[in-house]
Amino acid sequence: MIIVMKLNAPQSQVDAVKERLNQVGLKPHTIEGVEKQVIGAVGNQNLSLLSGLEIMEGVEKVLHVSSPYQLVSREAKEENSIIDLGGVKIGGPELAIMAGPCAVEDYEKTSSIGHFLKEQGVSILRGGAYKPRTSPYSFQGLEIEGLEILYQVAQETGLKIVSEVLSPSDVEVVSSYVDVMQIGARNMQNYALLKEAGKSLKPVLLKRGMACSIEEWLMSAEYIMAEGNPHVILCERGIKTFEGYTRNTLDISAVSLAKQLSHLPVIADPSHSSGSWKLVPSLSKAIISAGGDGLIIEVHENPAEAWCDGPQSLNFSTFQNMMSQLHPVATALGRTMPELPKKVKGEK
Amino acid sequence: MIIVMKLNAPQSQVDAVKERLNQVGLKPHTIEGVEKQVIGAVGNQNLSLLSGLEIMEGVEKVLHVSSPYQLVSREAKEENSIIDLGGVKIGGPELAIMAGPCAVEDYEKTSSIGHFLKEQGVSILRGGAYKPRTSPYSFQGLEIEGLEILYQVAQETGLKIVSEVLSPSDVEVVSSYVDVMQIGARNMQNYALLKEAGKSLKPVLLKRGMACSIEEWLMSAEYIMAEGNPHVILCERGIKTFEGYTRNTLDISAVSLAKQLSHLPVIADPSHSSGSWKLVPSLSKAIISAGGDGLIIEVHENPAEAWCDGPQSLNFSTFQNMMSQLHPVATALGRTMPELPKKVKGEK
Amino acid sequence: MIIVMKLNAPQSQVDAVKERLNQVGLKPHTIEGVEKQVIGAVGNQNLSLLSGLEIMEGVEKVLHVSSPYQLVSREAKEENSIIDLGGVKIGGPELAIMAGPCAVEDYEKTSSIGHFLKEQGVSILRGGAYKPRTSPYSFQGLEIEGLEILYQVAQETGLKIVSEVLSPSDVEVVSSYVDVMQIGARNMQNYALLKEAGKSLKPVLLKRGMACSIEEWLMSAEYIMAEGNPHVILCERGIKTFEGYTRNTLDISAVSLAKQLSHLPVIADPSHSSGSWKLVPSLSKAIISAGGDGLIIEVHENPAEAWCDGPQSLNFSTFQNMMSQLHPVATALGRTMPELPKKVKGEK
Amino acid sequence: MIIVMKLNAPQSQVDAVKERLNQVGLKPHTIEGVEKQVIGAVGNQNLSLLSGLEIMEGVEKVLHVSSPYQLVSREAKEENSIIDLGGVKIGGPELAIMAGPCAVEDYEKTSSIGHFLKEQGVSILRGGAYKPRTSPYSFQGLEIEGLEILYQVAQETGLKIVSEVLSPSDVEVVSSYVDVMQIGARNMQNYALLKEAGKSLKPVLLKRGMACSIEEWLMSAEYIMAEGNPHVILCERGIKTFEGYTRNTLDISAVSLAKQLSHLPVIADPSHSSGSWKLVPSLSKAIISAGGDGLIIEVHENPAEAWCDGPQSLNFSTFQNMMSQLHPVATALGRTMPELPKKVKGEK
Repeated sequence: MIIVMKLNAPQSQVDAVKERLNQVGLKPHTIEGVEKQVIGAVGNQNLSLLSGLEIMEGVEKVLHVSSPYQLVSREAKEENSIIDLGGVKIGGPELAIMAGPCAVEDYEKTSSIGHFLKEQGVSILRGGAYKPRTSPYSFQGLEIEGLEILYQVAQETGLKIVSEVLSPSDVEVVSSYVDVMQIGARNMQNYALLKEAGKSLKPVLLKRGMACSIEEWLMSAEYIMAEGNPHVILCERGIKTFEGYTRNTLDISAVSLAKQLSHLPVIADPSHSSGSWKLVPSLSKAIISAGGDGLIIEVHENPAEAWCDGPQSLNFSTFQNMMSQLHPVATALGRTMPELPKKVKGEK
Repeated sequence: MIIVMKLNAPQSQVDAVKERLNQVGLKPHTIEGVEKQVIGAVGNQNLSLLSGLEIMEGVEKVLHVSSPYQLVSREAKEENSIIDLGGVKIGGPELAIMAGPCAVEDYEKTSSIGHFLKEQGVSILRGGAYKPRTSPYSFQGLEIEGLEILYQVAQETGLKIVSEVLSPSDVEVVSSYVDVMQIGARNMQNYALLKEAGKSLKPVLLKRGMACSIEEWLMSAEYIMAEGNPHVILCERGIKTFEGYTRNTLDISAVSLAKQLSHLPVIADPSHSSGSWKLVPSLSKAIISAGGDGLIIEVHENPAEAWCDGPQSLNFSTFQNMMSQLHPVATALGRTMPELPKKVKGEK
Repeated sequence: MIIVMKLNAPQSQVDAVKERLNQVGLKPHTIEGVEKQVIGAVGNQNLSLLSGLEIMEGVEKVLHVSSPYQLVSREAKEENSIIDLGGVKIGGPELAIMAGPCAVEDYEKTSSIGHFLKEQGVSILRGGAYKPRTSPYSFQGLEIEGLEILYQVAQETGLKIVSEVLSPSDVEVVSSYVDVMQIGARNMQNYALLKEAGKSLKPVLLKRGMACSIEEWLMSAEYIMAEGNPHVILCERGIKTFEGYTRNTLDISAVSLAKQLSHLPVIADPSHSSGSWKLVPSLSKAIISAGGDGLIIEVHENPAEAWCDGPQSLNFSTFQNMMSQLHPVATALGRTMPELPKKVKGEK
Repeated sequence: MIIVMKLNAPQSQVDAVKERLNQVGLKPHTIEGVEKQVIGAVGNQNLSLLSGLEIMEGVEKVLHVSSPYQLVSREAKEENSIIDLGGVKIGGPELAIMAGPCAVEDYEKTSSIGHFLKEQGVSILRGGAYKPRTSPYSFQGLEIEGLEILYQVAQETGLKIVSEVLSPSDVEVVSSYVDVMQIGARNMQNYALLKEAGKSLKPVLLKRGMACSIEEWLMSAEYIMAEGNPHVILCERGIKTFEGYTRNTLDISAVSLAKQLSHLPVIADPSHSSGSWKLVPSLSKAIISAGGDGLIIEVHENPAEAWCDGPQSLNFSTFQNMMSQLHPVATALGRTMPELPKKVKGEK
């Protein structure tokens, strides 16, 4: 922490600042410039008690030097963290492809989508059972029934499951069904939920909030890790900007930056960020090119009749086509795509 | 809902769209332009099932005509809603002034601030007991102990209390201590919390999310009202923009607009939106001039030593000065300020 | 300028930074912390040559302490600057009300609007002769013919004229007709135009760019002043944000802040920022309450048939009504409104 | 254009709207819903005269159906436009790599950079001779001397030249030296400059403004094409958002979208959008993966001593490394990279 004093601030004001720093246990050092004095304070503790420093008399500016996150930081752990879901690894050389419908609608449709995705080499099935909807009058999800359906499809196909949790009191039940709990963009700063997810050891997919800076995103991951759960996957999904052609603006730089700043795996969601299936294949290629460790993509057998987010869902044929485009790009980047399941003799 | 078909879309595609509308119970009407056809659909139900309409073949654009909120809308209720906290009214001609520290720090400081504010004509004391903090290492609030302190100061002073609730499971306990539960900006789309607050009858102060549109804000109010709680106060507190001089950008137009679109009371928070006490007096005057029904302002006896948000807190003297500026402006606008408490003989 | 070195950066890297500072004429001072070293550099010259400093080896961060604007800064000149247009003063106790149509359409309409505004106490007529339009197919303005019309109406009414200039080569002709040259939001960083306007002594109304920070806005004013023209009026007119209900988001804090940071007069444009005439009266009251020195407002006799920006134009009756609301607010703020012209006996 | 009338608007109001449409030459068609009437208007002319329509009595909403750009639209021309700079093609299968220093500093450095880039397979040299700088006190560019240097290096190396033009009066001189005139982000809505560039036949690189929507960007390209110059290259370079870790937010979706909406070539600038050389390689791969036709990248022999934008400049070694990463990705995408120059025998 560096405190810049105003031009010709009297010594008494400098002393008051130094005393305040001493009070909370920081050691002040002064540099005497020709006109301005600068005070450096070493230490990281109790910084939240010092918000008032910048309005002490004689203080021109307070500058923070250290990054506020610790456990999630690459300085804390140099090598990449790899989250292992019983054999399916996120953050290693193999890209993680998560796909599925926006919402779980019923068993038949979910099972059909699940089997299709399995054949395409997808290893993780996404599907909303608890849905955060802007309108109280929109479909709110099948809740436990939806989790049961996902679980059944997982048993049939061997797919792993990722699904959203909306409330601290649902963490226990959701984590008993899924392999990865998703905390959605709207809940990225729902600290009660973050803490509860941190008390579990279930992997957490943490989506970036639509108005949240990269630093705030990493701080929310820090909340989960600080409670004891190191299994966090970061997911960029677009931020709010003035541009209206897309639903949100995919912050592709955030994918690269999060990889540089943190050891955690980073994936991105081209479906929610764009709001348009026509952009999903090119954005998916861009995300892995920027260093992303995987993708989470909406797929529906019949998007025109999906109960939510139809316009951004790929159908089976456009998804298959996209996967075939991703393969050579992954190879060019030195990454691998999930292997296709081996077909038993006689299968077509 | 209006569906614009592509140039020369064949009749079969038009028919498919009309059939889909019929399926979910909407009545389609067609207008034949020279080149393009337009289909109007009357009805408001099941719209969430129709997200996929815009990707049906031949469809160029889908346009929504009706506003998605109903109970909060001024069309639903023409006269202003007034929230009555046992005599203190929000939304009537008298402006509601809520003030107090960012966080409840201890009894002595809270009591001292409370008595000061009471003398200034403030009728509602704000103070955080549960604090949503970006960092897990920052002070997280005194929790129940903080509520106890607020309650005690309320008993002593006659002030009403507003304090934040962070989790659905805390709604019961928080609402047993306070007169108004605050749902903060970070939780504006925490639907589990909105629903729980909607099941209570305790008034709710709903802050606008930093990346949330005015429509999304009204939809979150709709969540609370749809559960049966009509006592909602809207609070603008700044949105995220590229401007870095201020902590957020106070959307002053949102204050005026929310009053036009909804019958609910609308207040604003000049402290959090600006992040700087030097802007609070002028923004406060602007907020009431734009039609705001009140203010929520951070005040601390010694902002330089506040445990959080010191830079945006007024001290006693700057608050007093601001109140004296607000009086003539309120009068000019045809509004009244809360009456000062009558002094007993012998008091100075 | 403060350079924070990385943890345990070797002395050779510290020396390299100090040498680079010496090279461009700055004097480095070092502070030795327990773990990190910090170098302060005194001086303001050649800073633009130092952009590369932050990527020198061992450098963690470069922090700028001084504000980059000088002539426009309140530190440079403590008292308010007042721009005097032959008796009509901007920046003094009297508020400046500028009003008129978006575009000059023809003599009759302009004259009719001018005479109406004169009676309402307006002292400056706005009207676009050169129009910056998003589409090349939209009406581009009457150009010189428009200036002639404005000049004629000014002669008839005694109103002063403000009108936009789009190109450096038009500065001479526009400034020969108008009392204030407007530089629009889209041209706020058109440095060729700023320099040309700076070579004139004609007052300049500098609108803030829609994506420009307050600092960038003041830097653009600095361009004009650095060329020798001290007569700059700052005008806030809304920034681009995600909110779509309004055309732009009026940054009301920027009005207060610009008054604190600079000695120049600051006005705002409630018409362009909101895009809706229904918001103009309340925003106008908010602007002057926030410390604005005046307003620039679109008024048209028949907004429904205006050639541009009809939806944000007040008509005669709504403008008159707004003026009557502004009077008491101005008085409450200790400001005055322009006096109404004295009527000659016998006039109604 | 579709006009939605308010619930139960009387026939007289509907008739007034239809009359207004007829007045400007549009043909109205009415659709009678059960409760609301909708009027469709066919035709595209004089739309700018109709801004006032939405405030006519009884009108609820006016919806625009057609895109406002025509010449730049892919509907107008299905196949990709290819800009041919004497053999170097932009918009075809081969990616266009433009690179060079932010500013031309002197002949020696520019020549050294030019020869290095030539060897790396770059075909177009970028370099600023006229610099738009936020501060009037920053280095403003060598102007004509800078153009002379670029021209000389082009002669020596066979590289094509792209350089920025800031003012309409400089279009003639700049276009006499360069192969592509750049119009920068700050001038994207400098219509006087766009028109002047449109009167030339010199190819124009049009950067997207930092607060400009994709539609506004295409409209600015339309300005150039409407004047008769079809040789426009679109360049995404980041938009202003709340995120502060990067200088701007690269809108990767805009690259894909612009390719879908328009036939013009689309490139992007990873240097200015990120502000950090460490992000340039991964963003470059993302840009071409998203469908970009090329890149414009800042390269300097010694970024720490560059006169501007050092932190975002690659040095020779990081540029070379990036090029080697781009090759396999280009191949995977079915694109080609520029061929390396054949070495004469005896060269190392």
